[in-house]
Amino acid sequence: MKNLRGFASDNNSGVHKDILKAMQDVNVGHTIAYGSDIYTLAALEKMKKIFGNDTDICFVFTGTAANVLGLDAVTRPYHSIICAESSHINEDECGAPEKFTGCKLLSIPVKDGKLTPDAIKKHLYGFDFEHHSQPRVVSITQATELGTVYTPEEIAAIADLAHENNMYLHMDGARIANAAASLGLDFREFTGDVGVDILSFGGTKNGMMYGEAIVFFNRDLTENFKYIRKQGMQLASKMRFISAQFMRYLSDDLWLKNASHANKMARLLESELQDVPEVKITQKVEANGVFAILPKETIPELQKEFFFYVWDERKSEVRWMTSFDTKAKDVRKFARVIKELLG
Amino acid sequence: MKNLRGFASDNNSGVHKDILKAMQDVNVGHTIAYGSDIYTLAALEKMKKIFGNDTDICFVFTGTAANVLGLDAVTRPYHSIICAESSHINEDECGAPEKFTGCKLLSIPVKDGKLTPDAIKKHLYGFDFEHHSQPRVVSITQATELGTVYTPEEIAAIADLAHENNMYLHMDGARIANAAASLGLDFREFTGDVGVDILSFGGTKNGMMYGEAIVFFNRDLTENFKYIRKQGMQLASKMRFISAQFMRYLSDDLWLKNASHANKMARLLESELQDVPEVKITQKVEANGVFAILPKETIPELQKEFFFYVWDERKSEVRWMTSFDTKAKDVRKFARVIKELLG
Amino acid sequence: MKNLRGFASDNNSGVHKDILKAMQDVNVGHTIAYGSDIYTLAALEKMKKIFGNDTDICFVFTGTAANVLGLDAVTRPYHSIICAESSHINEDECGAPEKFTGCKLLSIPVKDGKLTPDAIKKHLYGFDFEHHSQPRVVSITQATELGTVYTPEEIAAIADLAHENNMYLHMDGARIANAAASLGLDFREFTGDVGVDILSFGGTKNGMMYGEAIVFFNRDLTENFKYIRKQGMQLASKMRFISAQFMRYLSDDLWLKNASHANKMARLLESELQDVPEVKITQKVEANGVFAILPKETIPELQKEFFFYVWDERKSEVRWMTSFDTKAKDVRKFARVIKELLG
Amino acid sequence: MKNLRGFASDNNSGVHKDILKAMQDVNVGHTIAYGSDIYTLAALEKMKKIFGNDTDICFVFTGTAANVLGLDAVTRPYHSIICAESSHINEDECGAPEKFTGCKLLSIPVKDGKLTPDAIKKHLYGFDFEHHSQPRVVSITQATELGTVYTPEEIAAIADLAHENNMYLHMDGARIANAAASLGLDFREFTGDVGVDILSFGGTKNGMMYGEAIVFFNRDLTENFKYIRKQGMQLASKMRFISAQFMRYLSDDLWLKNASHANKMARLLESELQDVPEVKITQKVEANGVFAILPKETIPELQKEFFFYVWDERKSEVRWMTSFDTKAKDVRKFARVIKELLG
Repeated sequence: MKNLRGFASDNNSGVHKDILKAMQDVNVGHTIAYGSDIYTLAALEKMKKIFGNDTDICFVFTGTAANVLGLDAVTRPYHSIICAESSHINEDECGAPEKFTGCKLLSIPVKDGKLTPDAIKKHLYGFDFEHHSQPRVVSITQATELGTVYTPEEIAAIADLAHENNMYLHMDGARIANAAASLGLDFREFTGDVGVDILSFGGTKNGMMYGEAIVFFNRDLTENFKYIRKQGMQLASKMRFISAQFMRYLSDDLWLKNASHANKMARLLESELQDVPEVKITQKVEANGVFAILPKETIPELQKEFFFYVWDERKSEVRWMTSFDTKAKDVRKFARVIKELLG
Repeated sequence: MKNLRGFASDNNSGVHKDILKAMQDVNVGHTIAYGSDIYTLAALEKMKKIFGNDTDICFVFTGTAANVLGLDAVTRPYHSIICAESSHINEDECGAPEKFTGCKLLSIPVKDGKLTPDAIKKHLYGFDFEHHSQPRVVSITQATELGTVYTPEEIAAIADLAHENNMYLHMDGARIANAAASLGLDFREFTGDVGVDILSFGGTKNGMMYGEAIVFFNRDLTENFKYIRKQGMQLASKMRFISAQFMRYLSDDLWLKNASHANKMARLLESELQDVPEVKITQKVEANGVFAILPKETIPELQKEFFFYVWDERKSEVRWMTSFDTKAKDVRKFARVIKELLG
Repeated sequence: MKNLRGFASDNNSGVHKDILKAMQDVNVGHTIAYGSDIYTLAALEKMKKIFGNDTDICFVFTGTAANVLGLDAVTRPYHSIICAESSHINEDECGAPEKFTGCKLLSIPVKDGKLTPDAIKKHLYGFDFEHHSQPRVVSITQATELGTVYTPEEIAAIADLAHENNMYLHMDGARIANAAASLGLDFREFTGDVGVDILSFGGTKNGMMYGEAIVFFNRDLTENFKYIRKQGMQLASKMRFISAQFMRYLSDDLWLKNASHANKMARLLESELQDVPEVKITQKVEANGVFAILPKETIPELQKEFFFYVWDERKSEVRWMTSFDTKAKDVRKFARVIKELLG
Repeated sequence: MKNLRGFASDNNSGVHKDILKAMQDVNVGHTIAYGSDIYTLAALEKMKKIFGNDTDICFVFTGTAANVLGLDAVTRPYHSIICAESSHINEDECGAPEKFTGCKLLSIPVKDGKLTPDAIKKHLYGFDFEHHSQPRVVSITQATELGTVYTPEEIAAIADLAHENNMYLHMDGARIANAAASLGLDFREFTGDVGVDILSFGGTKNGMMYGEAIVFFNRDLTENFKYIRKQGMQLASKMRFISAQFMRYLSDDLWLKNASHANKMARLLESELQDVPEVKITQKVEANGVFAILPKETIPELQKEFFFYVWDERKSEVRWMTSFDTKAKDVRKFARVIKELLG
């Protein structure tokens, strides 16, 4: 069977059919390129309704770009960026933040992917000392790369610490929809409202094709951002096709339905496996990822039937991601095969 | 009437319906992300049939990125890149080449957008002298930003000069289809076969939605290119949707039909205006652009009805671009309005 | 004879004995490193007396660094820097400005090394247009690389143009002492007083050993400059030895005596050769350089006896530089040999 | 008393008188600038005798520059550099390595400033995976920033691990003389002979004025290094004054006498304090630094009389550095004051 649904990554899925339809619908005649078209204006308007009129929003192509350019907007190369060791910007962007911003990343080992004020404080020194990269941004991921979710209170505490030190709070929201669904909150309630300054707002992992948004909760930060985006090679000419996706994604709670479903599938997988003694779930299942330690020899056998990634070779830990299009039967079949392999 | 077709730019057009259809067709189930899917493998295979088995091909998001990353693959920051003053890399990428590669751009003023060996030679000095940025790449655009087209012989002469000096020849092919249609040649006959080393192969200006290809005619150049692409924020997760576009674009001569038509519309516009004494066509119409000097006061009047750009304020020179979806009636109406405005 | 004085460059000379003495005098005990020592504070104080209390002054190692870091203080990578094609930043720094600032250099061909408002205006367009590198700085060299000197009025006109366009005026003053001696003016009268915003104040070509100063005439520009200097690898640990040089250089008119003498030697060389028909002086001799076209075959013969550089191979043009330690007898002997070689 | 000798840093000291004398001695007439002079050739020759004929050696201005440019010679921006958290490149260069090389630094917390193969292995994964910065260099400091010294065997073990993984070993030798004196070995025996590929060879902290050397033990690494140095703003025009310092420094064992003395003074300080119960020496005293925990309230009192730095505010840990010019009476007086303050 072609293109079997697996548990490798939420970006192995395709595009939600309604989003594809929306892209088709804007494929009419000519529009101004590079974002001055009516579809883009409408999509930005819609996003401002969600995030607030005082925000500025820009579309780019990828999540990596959203992170890097958002960070670049508030840094100079002599700044440092504090993040979790497991964060995407530290681990999975091939050094794009360092290359583009010139900044130092200060990564902190954390078990569950979540930074805390105490962990951050370790790096809050050397201000005003010219030999030291100046701490400028704290970056957190919501939901984290380990499938956990920050509460608004946890985010507020980090934001307060950052702001007290004249720093910014950046959020990588590649899976922000899964976090919102998990928390049962509007996006704003755990971003701008609790002190996030810059947000990478992703949709590709939740049913979109391409295109991410950067939400700046402080409009002073974006005076020159258009040049950063263009020089960063992230200005789409036929922008309407990104805008159409966001417009549809944010309408009729499509984002929420997709994310809620994916989260539900992750919890289903967790519950299917909770009584299997050889499988140890290693992280709280709060979004759409399940992390588990399996007997080493089982992994390649299982990968013959379902595609997924080993997370930590040394610990024999794997990562299973669910997606908007994961079916309950997929999960059940997967759990069944695991159990069979484990005997 | 919504989204009127104008003459502003070939990227103001939408997406050819067959390409949109192809994108829809691959929206099935899960595939490996980041380019290891079957659709991408097939598209790369197809492109290798066109450009040669010794080539390496990579997809990125934009034309600017194709240029910048292609140049980065063969340079270190102490190199210089020789280009026409009017080239996209020099004029329209907000300094992305300098920022990403660290290199110096040596731009040469040329009337028709085309470099010549003689013009390039001016900058071929200072080799081995550590105070001097080392000339490393010549970059040409085909078709040029001024709507002209290099002959294979002209390209070969530049390639020979570059190679004699241990340099590379880069081609910005954002409108390469228009050039191929104009020349009546296969892509290879005026790229790899005559000495082009790196090609930005564009489709967005000719009916695609997004995504460009970089063709390396020398596989030694790409050993580490995958890292450059990722760090350059140009690795698409759902790559299949770029690949599907290229697959369709390069099938059944769709690219050629689109480009031939756009070129034809440009020539039609030229012929409609050739007897209007107040309109002076300033460049040969060899691809899909028409450059013309108009009476200054006519321009804003005309822009009220059709969207297009002034090219050179001081000379009262405008640029009119045709596209795959430009209709003959659009051109005739446009010409009629011009004539009416001119009295 | 060892280490014969030649006409290759003013940095082929050694160090004025009084400056070496001053360096010796501060070699006493321990002082705080990195510029917080009493000698540095005193030197900065002295320079502020010369340039004004509203200035900020920083020491770096080289002229290239002074230029690059001074430019970096007022730019972001999406900016462009307008300069003469023959300027040191464009021609002789191996792309250091592009690499460090990320900016585009817009170079203008000029016969005598001097920019003019008209020449600059050509590049003053595309403001606010995100595809275009934003013009941000005009950089001029005083005295120029071609031995000519701007009048204060010429500088003021360029400064006014820059400021009207929300841009800065940067001056590369590697040979500013020669310019001041030539004009008979204090440094301020043709820098801060006429609108220069950032000045590379050099001494190495006029009798110092190493170390250059950056003078910022607007203190708002230096809020974070200390980080730029450190990250730019230009913070000297034993700073007192740079400071001692500047202190002595700027005392008892040593800088002026040195520069006046060098200028005088250049004029002597000019006058010695003015009646030699085969030697064509190509630039006004306003500082310490003489540019001349010689019969091609004479050049290597002459170089056997005196070390100097060919400036433009194609034109058979050479550059002869005089220095603080050039003797009148050196010049006369040089002129005599030239005449003999020419028959 | 002016410029009292303290324990703040070995770069608070001045210049050894013989080195100053050597600088004076080369201040004769004209020499070719930028390193082609006879003094530089002689100094490089001398260093090759020490490090081997297969080495390439280049002078730069500062230790930061030696580190950064040496690392840049073997990296591209998608590489990562593994180092100790306490290393100078990570902690004290204001992000210069990230800014110039574009690379990611992977820093490892280590108690005594020394990396071990086991600690390094943690970061040796993700090879060939394009999302991951590719590990390329291990950088160690000898003597470390914590006053400890690697044995040749320890270095060899790290070098072997690096080379097995197709990586390079870089050594920051800002205090390499202190290490050599401590080990009683020639420089080569614990650098090139045990697998170091690139060495920052410092002298400024041991009696020189400015100027550091980069020693490449593999000449393939330097093919284009001259451009990196120039573009890195580290090419001295009057190079002879750096070369003269190295020539003298490496003659008559001056480097060794200076370093041995400084080390001896550190051990003297250690022994003077070893019976003071309130002072806890926290690191082995193997070079010229003494690290100690003092009662918090004693520190500011002590700093009133002697200048030195707090190393770790939280732990009440200070750093005392000795220098080539530290006198035994300085140390004894310092110890006496400490004891008095502690009652």
